[in-house]
Amino acid sequence: MSSLPKSLKNVSLFLERLPGIGERSANRMAFYLLRLPDADLKAFSEQLAHLKERTKRCKICMNLAESDICSICSDATRDKKRITVVEDVLDLLSMETGNIYNGVYHVLHGRIDPLNHIGPDDIFLSQLFDRLKEVEEVILATNPDMEGEATAMYIRNKLSEVKEATSLTFTVTRLGYGMPMGGNLEYADYMTLRKALENRRDFK
Amino acid sequence: MSSLPKSLKNVSLFLERLPGIGERSANRMAFYLLRLPDADLKAFSEQLAHLKERTKRCKICMNLAESDICSICSDATRDKKRITVVEDVLDLLSMETGNIYNGVYHVLHGRIDPLNHIGPDDIFLSQLFDRLKEVEEVILATNPDMEGEATAMYIRNKLSEVKEATSLTFTVTRLGYGMPMGGNLEYADYMTLRKALENRRDFK
Repeated sequence: MSSLPKSLKNVSLFLERLPGIGERSANRMAFYLLRLPDADLKAFSEQLAHLKERTKRCKICMNLAESDICSICSDATRDKKRITVVEDVLDLLSMETGNIYNGVYHVLHGRIDPLNHIGPDDIFLSQLFDRLKEVEEVILATNPDMEGEATAMYIRNKLSEVKEATSLTFTVTRLGYGMPMGGNLEYADYMTLRKALENRRDFK
Repeated sequence: MSSLPKSLKNVSLFLERLPGIGERSANRMAFYLLRLPDADLKAFSEQLAHLKERTKRCKICMNLAESDICSICSDATRDKKRITVVEDVLDLLSMETGNIYNGVYHVLHGRIDPLNHIGPDDIFLSQLFDRLKEVEEVILATNPDMEGEATAMYIRNKLSEVKEATSLTFTVTRLGYGMPMGGNLEYADYMTLRKALENRRDFK
């Protein structure tokens, strides 16, 4: 690829860092960008430059939001007594397809993963424990793989401690195993997710 | 995807316009971008904003270039007597892998495609005809599909006219077509098999 001009090569190299993009796809995308109207490119460039500062975390559930409270937490029709705990926002988005769930969420932005030096204090757990008053059910929807299971078990144990130490009476459930082990919520279709919701069980 | 903040949604929607990118991939990429250091994002944004103005066309072969003449045309070791005509720069890049070719190129930036209102005057043909002095061979490497074949035939006819009208003696060749290396007859389409049959050679 020696003959690619540097301006294009730089764009292509950056695109190659994106998940699922190899050298060929990155080149194709870079050439596509080059053919776009300059106004479109400039507009996209502006959006990118300000992406991080314009995207906030919901003060309640840690979901991404445009303002302090996300669209789900500020929706009066959502059942605030039910909190589904997910690893990240893409998992939340999967749960939101198909209109299968009317509760609220808690986004951990990660999971406990000792091999990658991510411990309980590195995900938004304390913020979850602060939300337990008036909650009836905490649905653990971390992914059904090793780290997700470990994270679910850790949270379950912590929630048991909370219940023992207080007069709170919420139940803790885990998504049902309509989900294949080793799978990822992000790629599940909503029918599978619905099954998993229906089959959720007490997590003891 | 109602719950995605607009800042992120806009970026995702733009990414979805790129070739081969669907809604899910676009979302994944947007989230990845959000997690990048702000400096990386700002740098990429800057590259994008100036991509078009920083990328020029080589005055000789129409390949993309950083300056007036591209890296291939300005390379003294390349054989300027041999010109391979390709539809676009991605095709040129394919030819450049594996060190299989040492001539130069002519990039049409398109092909004759009447259904999409692209005629001979809409691709860089006149610039090719201006390059024929001292050329020994023109290799037509437009793609082996309907429009690519039609374009190759059009160029071949025009080049014959040039040879009749002048004393130029270059030859015109077309890339060989047949079974791809590593391919399997079982899965080959009959057009490819027909080409492979037509192009069969003594096997010694």
